[in-house]
Amino acid sequence: MAFRYPNGKRFIPSGTKPSKSLTGTSPQFGNRGMTLEEDLNETNEYYLQTGQAVIHKKPTPVQIVGVDYPKRSAATITEAYFKQPSTTDYNGVYSGKYIDFEAKETRNKTSFPFGNVHEHQVKHMERVVNQGGIAFLIFRFSPTQEVYLYDASHFIYWFREQKERKSIPKNDIEEKGHLVPQGLSPRLDYLQIIDRVYF
Amino acid sequence: MAFRYPNGKRFIPSGTKPSKSLTGTSPQFGNRGMTLEEDLNETNEYYLQTGQAVIHKKPTPVQIVGVDYPKRSAATITEAYFKQPSTTDYNGVYSGKYIDFEAKETRNKTSFPFGNVHEHQVKHMERVVNQGGIAFLIFRFSPTQEVYLYDASHFIYWFREQKERKSIPKNDIEEKGHLVPQGLSPRLDYLQIIDRVYF
Repeated sequence: MAFRYPNGKRFIPSGTKPSKSLTGTSPQFGNRGMTLEEDLNETNEYYLQTGQAVIHKKPTPVQIVGVDYPKRSAATITEAYFKQPSTTDYNGVYSGKYIDFEAKETRNKTSFPFGNVHEHQVKHMERVVNQGGIAFLIFRFSPTQEVYLYDASHFIYWFREQKERKSIPKNDIEEKGHLVPQGLSPRLDYLQIIDRVYF
Repeated sequence: MAFRYPNGKRFIPSGTKPSKSLTGTSPQFGNRGMTLEEDLNETNEYYLQTGQAVIHKKPTPVQIVGVDYPKRSAATITEAYFKQPSTTDYNGVYSGKYIDFEAKETRNKTSFPFGNVHEHQVKHMERVVNQGGIAFLIFRFSPTQEVYLYDASHFIYWFREQKERKSIPKNDIEEKGHLVPQGLSPRLDYLQIIDRVYF
């Protein structure tokens, strides 16, 4: 059975060779076809273990409709549906400040389509910004494996003021965003950028 | 089918008369058998709408094992299991600061059993405190309907240093905690307490 993540991405069991299009043209990053989510989870786990930050991905919200309670087994959910998240996927704390972000990947080379970021997520970003929280997006361009941290205020501008465009030109992300250092551990050292840009 | 929430609590569909033991002896709070979770969700929604804070309950984490993709219907999760949360249930931002809390209810009159707060949730609280975040617990004593905000540092002390006790004496919660004002809207105005105590 081919599983898909709630975002539609195909689940690739370990041991399977990843498709070429995911490995990109930059083998030095050691990415080897890991999804952006996996790299971020690894990074967040590193920050947790080293006591640098407490940032987690929120669980996928599901609408539970049916549950079985077998006598000698764990409760089994037998019917449930994926709900649209009303917030962004990642949040936590760093140096007392609230951190909030959404992570997206694209195969596009010249722009970032914002089609898969939804109204309530943008509304959430606006609310977080209003409350003085640190909000941004992490964008990965699969062809080059480049990862950028892009402040939410810029994204909100494009989403609200330039809706007809449907995407953000890459050079705006290059100019206003920040390239995230990649490595073995942590894989995507975005905290380094937060430290430099927001503190 | 009688559903239970992942915490074991029975799901009571709207329109069903709540059991007497849940209404407590303080009808002036207008509680009418609503769970602590429902009251907090209502309160958080109020804070969201009035632009006062952005605080949400995290979705229940589930381990998804099987999904159906019917042609003209929404994807249906056909097999999943409840996972133990690795963090507390509620978090968000208020005035730029990270807010994090767990909410628990007890029918006990003289103490608060901490049996249903788990090791990784306490570890999470410790990590949040280490990062300068605001962390606390919201306790409700069902018999009197009193709701207290109790800083996580006190809870951590009892959990770590007084493990044999298995519960926190109510007068410690009265002394070191803060009674949360209750009303119609917001139902449990804990933000008032945060403002006074942490800012």
